[in-house]
Amino acid sequence: MAKTGKSKIDQSKVVLKRRNSRRDVLSASQLASQLQKGDRQTLATCITLVESTNAERNKTGLEVLKNCKRNSGKSIRIGITGAPGAGKSTFIEEFGSYIISLGHRVAVLAIDPSSTRSHGSILGDKTRMPLLSANDKAFIRPTASGGSLGGVSAKTPEVIQLCEAAGYDVILVETVGVGQSETAVHAMTDFFLLLALAGAGDELQGIKRGIMEMADAILVTKADGDNIKRANLAKAQIKSALHLFPSEESGWIPQVDSISALNKKGIDNAWNVVTAYQELARSSGYYKKKRNDQKIWWLNQLIEFEVLQNFRNAKGVQAAYTKATDQLLKGKVGVHEAVKSIIAVSKKSG
Amino acid sequence: MAKTGKSKIDQSKVVLKRRNSRRDVLSASQLASQLQKGDRQTLATCITLVESTNAERNKTGLEVLKNCKRNSGKSIRIGITGAPGAGKSTFIEEFGSYIISLGHRVAVLAIDPSSTRSHGSILGDKTRMPLLSANDKAFIRPTASGGSLGGVSAKTPEVIQLCEAAGYDVILVETVGVGQSETAVHAMTDFFLLLALAGAGDELQGIKRGIMEMADAILVTKADGDNIKRANLAKAQIKSALHLFPSEESGWIPQVDSISALNKKGIDNAWNVVTAYQELARSSGYYKKKRNDQKIWWLNQLIEFEVLQNFRNAKGVQAAYTKATDQLLKGKVGVHEAVKSIIAVSKKSG
Repeated sequence: MAKTGKSKIDQSKVVLKRRNSRRDVLSASQLASQLQKGDRQTLATCITLVESTNAERNKTGLEVLKNCKRNSGKSIRIGITGAPGAGKSTFIEEFGSYIISLGHRVAVLAIDPSSTRSHGSILGDKTRMPLLSANDKAFIRPTASGGSLGGVSAKTPEVIQLCEAAGYDVILVETVGVGQSETAVHAMTDFFLLLALAGAGDELQGIKRGIMEMADAILVTKADGDNIKRANLAKAQIKSALHLFPSEESGWIPQVDSISALNKKGIDNAWNVVTAYQELARSSGYYKKKRNDQKIWWLNQLIEFEVLQNFRNAKGVQAAYTKATDQLLKGKVGVHEAVKSIIAVSKKSG
Repeated sequence: MAKTGKSKIDQSKVVLKRRNSRRDVLSASQLASQLQKGDRQTLATCITLVESTNAERNKTGLEVLKNCKRNSGKSIRIGITGAPGAGKSTFIEEFGSYIISLGHRVAVLAIDPSSTRSHGSILGDKTRMPLLSANDKAFIRPTASGGSLGGVSAKTPEVIQLCEAAGYDVILVETVGVGQSETAVHAMTDFFLLLALAGAGDELQGIKRGIMEMADAILVTKADGDNIKRANLAKAQIKSALHLFPSEESGWIPQVDSISALNKKGIDNAWNVVTAYQELARSSGYYKKKRNDQKIWWLNQLIEFEVLQNFRNAKGVQAAYTKATDQLLKGKVGVHEAVKSIIAVSKKSG
């Protein structure tokens, strides 16, 4: 606990230093220019600007994006999920290093829905992924959710674009799989990767309902030592289970494999699967369609979020909601009456 | 086509007759009294009132409900879904008749998301379920969705309550599985039953992603004749697949069986599964918790629906949305700018 406290203090110092740095007085076009040269510190600054709740700073961040020649479509965005303990950090460490060895630049955005940090501390991720943190072709950044939009920062799509503008052509978006964050991550990535750990029986540990069917690939982790047999059994069962589901809109058949980050086994195949998907989706035109659909999805999500937030923040609405809920559960009012009473309050205040 | 046209004309006559009938001049408390005696025609009238878009008639309908001694908790609400061709009608015909033979009264609410009929025609269902339609312990009613709330009528929960007040203690809510209707049906029933048809291979026909994991029981239909082997194989595979998923909050383990409505095989077991679930969920207190959760879910859904609808109907919003979407896809604006421009229009008009 004392340690956490200390790192928080360190973090705030870094932030303070950044706030007063020269970068704050650079114009959006200057920042964009430096960003597109691949300057990591500028990238960090721009992300902080885009994520800022300060209107002025936020506006600058969005202007940077506007000043960048868009290069979306060139990168591949990979969502990675899995229950705690499934081995996400170890996998990303090996997977990211392997991709970099092929000549790519890799950005890792770690989404922590339980975090309300407004400025990402990379201290935790440095310990979690020491190899990748030390690699100058990698950029690691936790993004805080602030509790909004199903555990995903509303700004994550912009953060992805900033990373792409800075020349990162493989974007790994990691989610710890709490709340609804998978749906949001699924909606901002091209490829969705599920890491699964075989349990003491042959069931999977901690996979949430509905997640498996979203996956473009499922990797059974820790297929090493005593665990190989169990992992291979789980792999066979998942293959059989996926077979029951309808095929994806893209025509892609979700792939299943077992991997060992420890023995570096299956890491190359995981990347081959991603590139095979990319080729299929690009040649069929599905890639472009999906990204356009995702833009509209985000637009709709953000509109709904803002409209509903304005409603909830309207004077008297919270009190009316609490009262109506209580009466509804006691059977004193029906659900339509309850709705009417709450809406009426918001109209009065609006 | 000519036939459909004719039945529509017949239907409008029925509706006209109903509108001018004595029931319209009965008070809510009088209707409630007749309803609780189990009068089928009164039930039909009350449903029409509750579903009415006419404020006055709708209010009367809701008042009827208020005048009824609530008996929720006594009934069991069963959601039934399955792809077209999975054999829903045949199953409900046999299943409903079997349940009635045990001394129950069964209401079937057939949800047709593609329908915009505001007054249910039972002509179609009479052909679809001739035995059940002729049984005076059964009440069959299609409910129109009007395209709202994921294909489910916002009034369906009230319709369920009216059926319960009229003494129907088993409510079957059937959905054809188009759009998001399963989620809504899942959220208003105690038990969710998926009918699946084994394909020419061993895959399932037309099961949507995400549905299987919502099911409390999966029945592989048409396990007769040449199809028995295929159905049993599918049953084994589904069992194995479900094993991979986490257990339900209720502690219930989803059951899988193969059935033949043709040979009346497995119908009794399907009911045994439902009652076993009911016993478990009642004794653990989950039943009451789930129904309370569902009430809050509906409240939130309806509030969101109304708030967003008011927003969309605000002057200029549609035009602003169309324009912003176009510019977003062309890369001329970012998603946050797009949102801001649309929200600004709504605020001006509000």
